[in-house]
Amino acid sequence: MSGLWYTEKQTENFGITMKIKRTLHTEQTDFQYLEMAETEEWGNMLFLDGMVMTSQKDEFVYHEMVAHVPLFTHPNPENVLVVGGGDGGVIREVLKHPEVKKATLVDIDGKVIEYSKKFLPEIAGELDNERVDVRVDDGFMHIAKSENEYDVIMVDSTEPVGPAANLFTKGFYAGIAKALKEDGIFVAQTDNPWFKADLIREVQRDVKEIFPITRLYTANIPTYPSGMWTFTIGSKKYDPLEVSDEHFHDIETKYYTKELHKAAFVLPKFVKDLTE
Amino acid sequence: MSGLWYTEKQTENFGITMKIKRTLHTEQTDFQYLEMAETEEWGNMLFLDGMVMTSQKDEFVYHEMVAHVPLFTHPNPENVLVVGGGDGGVIREVLKHPEVKKATLVDIDGKVIEYSKKFLPEIAGELDNERVDVRVDDGFMHIAKSENEYDVIMVDSTEPVGPAANLFTKGFYAGIAKALKEDGIFVAQTDNPWFKADLIREVQRDVKEIFPITRLYTANIPTYPSGMWTFTIGSKKYDPLEVSDEHFHDIETKYYTKELHKAAFVLPKFVKDLTE
Repeated sequence: MSGLWYTEKQTENFGITMKIKRTLHTEQTDFQYLEMAETEEWGNMLFLDGMVMTSQKDEFVYHEMVAHVPLFTHPNPENVLVVGGGDGGVIREVLKHPEVKKATLVDIDGKVIEYSKKFLPEIAGELDNERVDVRVDDGFMHIAKSENEYDVIMVDSTEPVGPAANLFTKGFYAGIAKALKEDGIFVAQTDNPWFKADLIREVQRDVKEIFPITRLYTANIPTYPSGMWTFTIGSKKYDPLEVSDEHFHDIETKYYTKELHKAAFVLPKFVKDLTE
Repeated sequence: MSGLWYTEKQTENFGITMKIKRTLHTEQTDFQYLEMAETEEWGNMLFLDGMVMTSQKDEFVYHEMVAHVPLFTHPNPENVLVVGGGDGGVIREVLKHPEVKKATLVDIDGKVIEYSKKFLPEIAGELDNERVDVRVDDGFMHIAKSENEYDVIMVDSTEPVGPAANLFTKGFYAGIAKALKEDGIFVAQTDNPWFKADLIREVQRDVKEIFPITRLYTANIPTYPSGMWTFTIGSKKYDPLEVSDEHFHDIETKYYTKELHKAAFVLPKFVKDLTE
């Protein structure tokens, strides 16, 4: 048995560590350091620049919670854009909504797509679906060129260091507002409140200046720092807290439920304080 | 700077690791291996048998969520028992409720109390409060000897190995029912749904056979396995989901809110499935 352990330093002084069966692929791409490994606890895992991106065992939480909250909030999401998300997990969840006619994925790093298809097939399998348009391109530039086009935009980025740094700026949120239709809605992963409180506070402030409806919700992701992840919604018209019960339709999920759709916005006090 | 790191294996193949400034105390007590250390990330921490019990930085989540959910559910909790909890954190939160006339703490290991007072004073400080009766005794035996005595019982135990093994048995829950008054309510920490699903399922089944109202709720505790912790309530009369808004009174908290009191019971689907 291998004696390898992979340790992710989530802060300077704290991390998670996991036993590795074997490494599957390691490569410095044009944008980041990509590692795939088979772990004992979490199945196959993707790491970028030493940070956990997704694992076969817990990926459903992140992907369901990114996709279903905005998609059930919008009454008719026909045209969807995913920025980042090259592993394909968000796309898989998006396609569970029959109203979605087209889902465009723009990831800057084609290697993430390539090796996710190879080693995370249950996650990436729907990238070849005919409703999906996969583009290897700069998400920031794609947004800058788009106007009045999308019903829902999902930002499934890495941390605000490296290639995703400009995806956490007010300029990017303004670009998203322009790229969305007049009743559009966007969601972005916005890290965790234990180690990145300042980031969350800044994002709320920036998004509030651009979108009339700004909301923060959370989900439990055991392989992400602190186990509590946040997502920020900016919406031009529809409020995720005002979705009527009859608007939900049945989809197969392991984490998301229509009751959780609303409960996920009820924040612990120290997190709520970051939104005020 | 010290090169020490403390690694807790939360499963055979996964753990957390944290940088240590210095160890404060290490001792094999009559019941367990006790360690206190000053960490860079979490402040002072207490470990028992190699498992994180509490840290100065995130202790508020566990202690608030154990105490306030049952105490706000019971209309007049005058007499409260805490089984375990020698660090004193639950007692500190219990005393925020002015209706509580007496809070008894029964911990089997006096060393936990002694070293918590020394190294975790913000947590243990209220153990000397005049409303508190601290006993170094076997919680299981204390429960077995009690009858129709308590309004609320809180089980703040270690994992179901070592000294706390008998605190996860149906016999113990039956003893709790006997020790409670006719409208009493109890809560127990019941581990996490990612690595201990079977335990949670068993506890729900056992408690349901004894208490007419059984409920499971969660909280995010970053230093505990998976970051998502569960708590099980057994209640003879009062339902935590039916607390009326005017029953809540203001208390100072960092995690608990009256909105979260109810939202914490809205479970992710894979957790909800464990209760059915």
